[in-house]
Amino acid sequence: MTVGIVGAGQLGRMLALAGYPLGVDFLFLDPAARPPAAALAPHLHGSFSDRRLLGALARRSEVITFDWENVSVAALRALRQDVRICPPLAALAASQDRVSEKRLFERLQIPTTRWRAVGSRRQLERAVRDIGLPGVLKTRRLGYDGKGQAVLKSAADVAHAWRELGAATLLYEEHIAFTHEVSIIGARSSAGEVAVYPLGGNVHSQGILRLTRAPYGPSSWQQLAKRYLARVLEHFRYVGILAIEFFVQRGRLIANEMAPRVHNSGHWTIEGALTSQFENHLRAILGLPLGSTRALGYSAMVNLIGRMPPARELLAFQGLHLHDYAKAPRPGRKLGHCTFVARTRAERDRWARGLLAILAPNTRIP
Amino acid sequence: MTVGIVGAGQLGRMLALAGYPLGVDFLFLDPAARPPAAALAPHLHGSFSDRRLLGALARRSEVITFDWENVSVAALRALRQDVRICPPLAALAASQDRVSEKRLFERLQIPTTRWRAVGSRRQLERAVRDIGLPGVLKTRRLGYDGKGQAVLKSAADVAHAWRELGAATLLYEEHIAFTHEVSIIGARSSAGEVAVYPLGGNVHSQGILRLTRAPYGPSSWQQLAKRYLARVLEHFRYVGILAIEFFVQRGRLIANEMAPRVHNSGHWTIEGALTSQFENHLRAILGLPLGSTRALGYSAMVNLIGRMPPARELLAFQGLHLHDYAKAPRPGRKLGHCTFVARTRAERDRWARGLLAILAPNTRIP
Repeated sequence: MTVGIVGAGQLGRMLALAGYPLGVDFLFLDPAARPPAAALAPHLHGSFSDRRLLGALARRSEVITFDWENVSVAALRALRQDVRICPPLAALAASQDRVSEKRLFERLQIPTTRWRAVGSRRQLERAVRDIGLPGVLKTRRLGYDGKGQAVLKSAADVAHAWRELGAATLLYEEHIAFTHEVSIIGARSSAGEVAVYPLGGNVHSQGILRLTRAPYGPSSWQQLAKRYLARVLEHFRYVGILAIEFFVQRGRLIANEMAPRVHNSGHWTIEGALTSQFENHLRAILGLPLGSTRALGYSAMVNLIGRMPPARELLAFQGLHLHDYAKAPRPGRKLGHCTFVARTRAERDRWARGLLAILAPNTRIP
Repeated sequence: MTVGIVGAGQLGRMLALAGYPLGVDFLFLDPAARPPAAALAPHLHGSFSDRRLLGALARRSEVITFDWENVSVAALRALRQDVRICPPLAALAASQDRVSEKRLFERLQIPTTRWRAVGSRRQLERAVRDIGLPGVLKTRRLGYDGKGQAVLKSAADVAHAWRELGAATLLYEEHIAFTHEVSIIGARSSAGEVAVYPLGGNVHSQGILRLTRAPYGPSSWQQLAKRYLARVLEHFRYVGILAIEFFVQRGRLIANEMAPRVHNSGHWTIEGALTSQFENHLRAILGLPLGSTRALGYSAMVNLIGRMPPARELLAFQGLHLHDYAKAPRPGRKLGHCTFVARTRAERDRWARGLLAILAPNTRIP
């Protein structure tokens, strides 16, 4: 039984690590010469939209999934007659375009930011008038980790932001004065079974996820987030793991974006939940029963960004679980993460603050 | 950083699964065409004593270890000038010969069975007279999973056992009327740090491990086993994981055998301990700090032998962790295992009895 994965990054690597114990084999497609997952399984080396390689991937796999959402929906669609693809391509397409995503949230009555599509400088000025300042100008497509975004604080920022991003189609949305950022992650199986993880509380810095703590927040947030997630899962008759990120403002959850794949804010589940998001993604797409999403304690996951501290120093922290993605260091690049599972919320928070004080002393933790 | 592993069986496979998150790469040597670990890492295909392949393994690895103890000590010894080999070959040599192993236990004042070396039919008859009946005749070398053994209950069994095993050099030992079989597993690092896991209680059937439960038994057994293990670790200035199996008879621990490698009775540590035996073996041989061996609950590990039940059926048990070794089924062959981590001893024992009632209804569980 082979799972074909488009993209061989760290998410693919962790899918393989979770899948081998289930007796699954893997085949990756990735344009990089030595991507993180390629040490663990055979790797077709070429473009995500190379039809010949995609054809080979389809022939040699029972099911195809992706570890990266900026893959060509059209190229994958062409394979649908030959092989099953999970999650559904309609969900992938919606997540690739911020306007489709906003419309989806609105259609499913999931609160989201006020927004306007922006195709010209004039439309941008009108959007700023309608929505107000501060606001965020984002490319409709291909944004991730804070890339392709500009915050507009005053009218004077409009010209600069337009020069920066105006070449692409854009979306302007209100800037939410949030108190917390949270994300909900869950799986739906082909049989319609749904399993949702405890909510994670996220801390970003410079647009990149730095810290996730889970479980997080009051049960009212969990209930709300779970209800919204279930709506999206049902809408697409989804199969696999789906993540939605929210801003929290005065007890309201406001959807920011969704990801039709295993998600960085779910990495804590490897040690911190009874079944990891990676295993549940595979169980879902292979038609196996979903595993329990119960938290085993209070987890903190800290990303290792830009520079990899020596393993010797990290592993000297008792109880620290290291995940090195074997990537070349580069500023702003996610190179690994580490997780700690505490017995209490307070112990977890102390640990997270202690580690971040060393790794990224400027991070503000709520 | 590459770890070279002689043997690419399920132990090598689980070492690789534990090692990739540490940022380690692997290279295997194994005579099988498609051994369990070969899907996960490059594989040199050939005999365990092929000097050319061993040389290649040494050149391409920072350290060499083994997942199987019946490898040629002489062949490995020839590599020692080129590469570090852990655990020490002296420990490997002792574990390969039951007579050396018995002498080692005696020298370190670790209680073991009464025994005699047997090189002829006449020596066997004398050994039976000296040690008494019932007793066990074993080949000095190459025994595992109950292979190369015969139980002698009466004088009439002597002739038959001799016909069966007499071609090899042998050892005859008393048959211990034990109430429990337990094993202790621990790691020693090159810095001399020692980390020992909670004791496991083992149930064998037809010579093959069927069930391990850990933690197991009173703390007096744990203290005793830990003390004996530490003696062997210090004796060899050992680096890596070592396991010793004991019979328990009236509160005494009687050493049966040792294994200088990760051990089947330690598989529960993957989910049931803060750091798995596989990760601690790698930490030890890579000169990294050892991880905590604390148990996270009450674990049961059940081996899947001879026939692999469908994953769909196994995964329907909530909380069951499946480990499929991707091996072809064959009677008596270990094909995988599954682990359950309970909050109480009673819940754990209920689960183990329930699963074994389905998988191996004739197993007697103390």
